[in-house]
Amino acid sequence: MVEFSDRAALLSAHERIRPYVHRTPVVSSRSIDGMVGARVSFKCENLQRGGAFKLRGALNTVLSLTDAEAAHGVATHSSGNHGAALAIAAGIRGVPAYVVVPTNAPKVKRAAIAGYGATIIDCAPNVAAREAALAEVVARTGAYFVPPYDDPRIVAGASTATLELIEQVPDLEQIWVPVGGGGLASGCALATRDTGIAVIAAEPAGADDAARSLALGSRQDMPNPQTIADGLRTPLGVLNFAILSACGVTVALASEAGIVAATRLCFERLKLVVEPSGAVPLAALREAPASQPASRIGILVSGGNVDLDALAELFRNAPAS
Amino acid sequence: MVEFSDRAALLSAHERIRPYVHRTPVVSSRSIDGMVGARVSFKCENLQRGGAFKLRGALNTVLSLTDAEAAHGVATHSSGNHGAALAIAAGIRGVPAYVVVPTNAPKVKRAAIAGYGATIIDCAPNVAAREAALAEVVARTGAYFVPPYDDPRIVAGASTATLELIEQVPDLEQIWVPVGGGGLASGCALATRDTGIAVIAAEPAGADDAARSLALGSRQDMPNPQTIADGLRTPLGVLNFAILSACGVTVALASEAGIVAATRLCFERLKLVVEPSGAVPLAALREAPASQPASRIGILVSGGNVDLDALAELFRNAPAS
Repeated sequence: MVEFSDRAALLSAHERIRPYVHRTPVVSSRSIDGMVGARVSFKCENLQRGGAFKLRGALNTVLSLTDAEAAHGVATHSSGNHGAALAIAAGIRGVPAYVVVPTNAPKVKRAAIAGYGATIIDCAPNVAAREAALAEVVARTGAYFVPPYDDPRIVAGASTATLELIEQVPDLEQIWVPVGGGGLASGCALATRDTGIAVIAAEPAGADDAARSLALGSRQDMPNPQTIADGLRTPLGVLNFAILSACGVTVALASEAGIVAATRLCFERLKLVVEPSGAVPLAALREAPASQPASRIGILVSGGNVDLDALAELFRNAPAS
Repeated sequence: MVEFSDRAALLSAHERIRPYVHRTPVVSSRSIDGMVGARVSFKCENLQRGGAFKLRGALNTVLSLTDAEAAHGVATHSSGNHGAALAIAAGIRGVPAYVVVPTNAPKVKRAAIAGYGATIIDCAPNVAAREAALAEVVARTGAYFVPPYDDPRIVAGASTATLELIEQVPDLEQIWVPVGGGGLASGCALATRDTGIAVIAAEPAGADDAARSLALGSRQDMPNPQTIADGLRTPLGVLNFAILSACGVTVALASEAGIVAATRLCFERLKLVVEPSGAVPLAALREAPASQPASRIGILVSGGNVDLDALAELFRNAPAS
């Protein structure tokens, strides 16, 4: 029997989504290599359709639905990249998308979700209001709920970014990946099993639930995350935690000042627009003790959806390094 | 006899520099395609080493020198990308580089030139001071002068960006390319000869010497260029003008507001850090009358070396489109 997490299942997710996603490029910078003391290969999921890796999981899920499941469209809750990804995926499948968006979501992300053709349902910015709004829209429309990360189809889809990276750069010793809900990180852990590549999940010190969860062996809460990396404020998923644990993934933390500086480095040296969440692995790598040295490192840059005006304000206080 | 401009000469330049330059990726955005009404493929020379296409020409020239010519290093004058490119090229050849830099050059560009290992010679910001400083350093060191664009080896090197683009996207009907001194544009004209691909050179309306020169059939001055696109303020070169004329290249102009808006579009939709000069073709394309419609368009994004703080200020006055 093929388990969802078997390599064959990951490869079949890749076949399923390949016609619709970009095989994103890998870039590098000699000046960053010099700072870090290793050759660092950046997998540019900020250049993915929708501006983030999220399309991979959303599309794998939407294309896996039976005709009956998909008949009335798909629904989710999201303040950001997953909502946009589901809207694109629904468009590809040719079904409607409904996205519950908190009223305090950034205007640019709301506009992106609507721009990709989804119907937006407003909700108050709290978990109870969000779940009520989602339940209401699912009951009313018959849409199929596609969760943002805690789902085997999402994880299998997300794993394809790592499958591509290890094809594009075959000699990596380590891959550093941001961890929030854990979709990208658990997909990376599955895609690198039995390859000898170590996976390091990077998270903000101000949202360190993955670090504490893996240290204690059970999922820990993060009641009040404090980080500029908005994509990594979400709690670690149940399935995602189980995969990270089983695969022996370690966690490295990044300071807020380090995250801002790493984001700026990506703009200045890689010439890439990267959202703070996507720069967290570089930040953690620069702050890591040299106890785990590697000479060939991959980094998954998760996305590039930022409010440029807000970012400019941030950079004003973080001069070029 | 193989002329410098024959396809064989361009291919041999490509062979010469290939081990040291990035084969930069080509990206696209469905939202930009929708705005323009065509499929637009962006060749990302902002992701080239040194942050601009300039390394291609500088390196082709430096690697073409005899040992005697290269023995005492290379020299040039530059306030920007050519100086950085020559510094990198000299490092590859293992010889010193001397770059004459006007005292008003942006600090980041000066830092980049020094960071790549060149010796900087300051000069007052005018042509006479610059030429005197260059003559002095050449006389004193015996360094070989490598001009920024008005040279067949520079043009052949620059042509390789277009050679790659038409390999990467074989069905283009038009290529839009920024024109300042004309190195990239004349290289593009040579690389597309006999392919049926039309070349449109894009320049700021406030620095329209190429447009006037090609219309009148002789090189025209541009005494006081007024544009944010600092890479395109230079006068069109003699050789570059001759090639653009002979190849029947047409020119399209871009407004200053259009250049800022196109730069912002590259950040927001392509997730790329692009300098205003690199966004001029997109700006001109968006402002062009629909008289020359094409469905498959390539754009050469020339570079990504910007002062992020200055750009943020610019974007503040140019909201998202």
